[in-house]
Amino acid sequence: MSENQFENIIDRTLERIDDLNVNGWRIYQNSGLFRFGIDAVLLSGYAAPREGEAVIDLCSGTGVIPFILLAKNRVKEITALEYFEYFCSLIEKTARLNSCADRIKPVCEDVRNVGRIFVKNSFDVVTVNPPYEKNGHGIDSKNGIINAARRETLCDIGDIARAAAHLLRPAGRLYMIHRPSRLCDVFCALRQNGLEPRRYRLVQSYADSAPSMVLLWAVKGGAPYLEAEKNLVIYDKNGGLTAECAAFYGREAYERV
Amino acid sequence: MSENQFENIIDRTLERIDDLNVNGWRIYQNSGLFRFGIDAVLLSGYAAPREGEAVIDLCSGTGVIPFILLAKNRVKEITALEYFEYFCSLIEKTARLNSCADRIKPVCEDVRNVGRIFVKNSFDVVTVNPPYEKNGHGIDSKNGIINAARRETLCDIGDIARAAAHLLRPAGRLYMIHRPSRLCDVFCALRQNGLEPRRYRLVQSYADSAPSMVLLWAVKGGAPYLEAEKNLVIYDKNGGLTAECAAFYGREAYERV
Repeated sequence: MSENQFENIIDRTLERIDDLNVNGWRIYQNSGLFRFGIDAVLLSGYAAPREGEAVIDLCSGTGVIPFILLAKNRVKEITALEYFEYFCSLIEKTARLNSCADRIKPVCEDVRNVGRIFVKNSFDVVTVNPPYEKNGHGIDSKNGIINAARRETLCDIGDIARAAAHLLRPAGRLYMIHRPSRLCDVFCALRQNGLEPRRYRLVQSYADSAPSMVLLWAVKGGAPYLEAEKNLVIYDKNGGLTAECAAFYGREAYERV
Repeated sequence: MSENQFENIIDRTLERIDDLNVNGWRIYQNSGLFRFGIDAVLLSGYAAPREGEAVIDLCSGTGVIPFILLAKNRVKEITALEYFEYFCSLIEKTARLNSCADRIKPVCEDVRNVGRIFVKNSFDVVTVNPPYEKNGHGIDSKNGIINAARRETLCDIGDIARAAAHLLRPAGRLYMIHRPSRLCDVFCALRQNGLEPRRYRLVQSYADSAPSMVLLWAVKGGAPYLEAEKNLVIYDKNGGLTAECAAFYGREAYERV
């Protein structure tokens, strides 16, 4: 790791404990850097690990997806791969906070190096909420960590696909959320790396909105057989969560939101 | 052309003249083979040729897309490439019926042979409503012509993309309708052939349906920059066309439907 360049932009006074909105679990975040949004909630609801499967989350950040999966008891244990040591330290603090340090294994490493540290075919499921934007698109934040969370400055969709292809066993599944504007890049990168897209589901804010996210999963070594699911609408016309979207949060959160 | 194998399955007694639903134009079809559906209407509404541009429709069948574009005066003239001589003969009859034989040029040829018969870069716009299903998927019709219209028995999405890449000038546009289940195949084939997807729009029957079609366009030699449009819903809850969908037909047709 060479994150010294980033160390001076971390303001630890902005660290805070937020509600994970699942079963009373909480999560360390830093309001100057990155706080989880609906993307993470949707992906952790969409991912479908089966009992006993080995699961790894890439580009894990503060570990929100692993912690939601743990809090919902949808995985017994999980590995969280994250580039920034600072976020790995937050993952460790959150694990202690929720008394689950024995269930999550943070690994501080560049996603492009998974071939060196993980045995090939060692996971059944990969989840990833990668940086959405191409490097150079839009206006860069002065904060390199925020940039890395939003844009492909440290890794791109090709790196993610290669990493997942290495990590997954044959017929293992990759679950991802991304932007609809990147769907061609995502499909091409997955197929080039032997991960065959199986289903995708566009997500839109309101019934009459253009889609702003896409949930999808792919199978390592699968035959081409794709299905498009009905779009997921997040808000009803009164601004509340739709029942379908609430199901991604789980009932407890639905009553709060 | 070697369509003798198909000649014996053409029942000319099933030929009929149907309404094109645009400005009183009519079209020859054969009810034993293929009659146009909403796909053709949507694609001809989605395609956006500019004045004076050279336009070619591939996999043209009875020429429904060219005739809708002509009837709406959205092109002055158009080339229609079709494999089956029988459909080419119907195109000629329809052209005479609507007094537009000087505006449409049917070319009876295999789409895989466009490199031999058309100069490279000779069109500004390609439209295509290709066979949707992979060869071998689903239950084959005993009728080889129906099969060829539905499945990739005579040409596949790679052939279509290669043909369009040959025909289009740099920055020329391809407009296509396909199945959402083929979107990965479509995106990969287009990009592999230097046609960069620019926009796509899923189409669904009702507000709560899964998408069943996708409209999209791509630019030859374009930089990757994709946008997802709001889904198009065909029917309202009473079973009538939505206003948005009706706009694809044009007002006259809307009042009839």
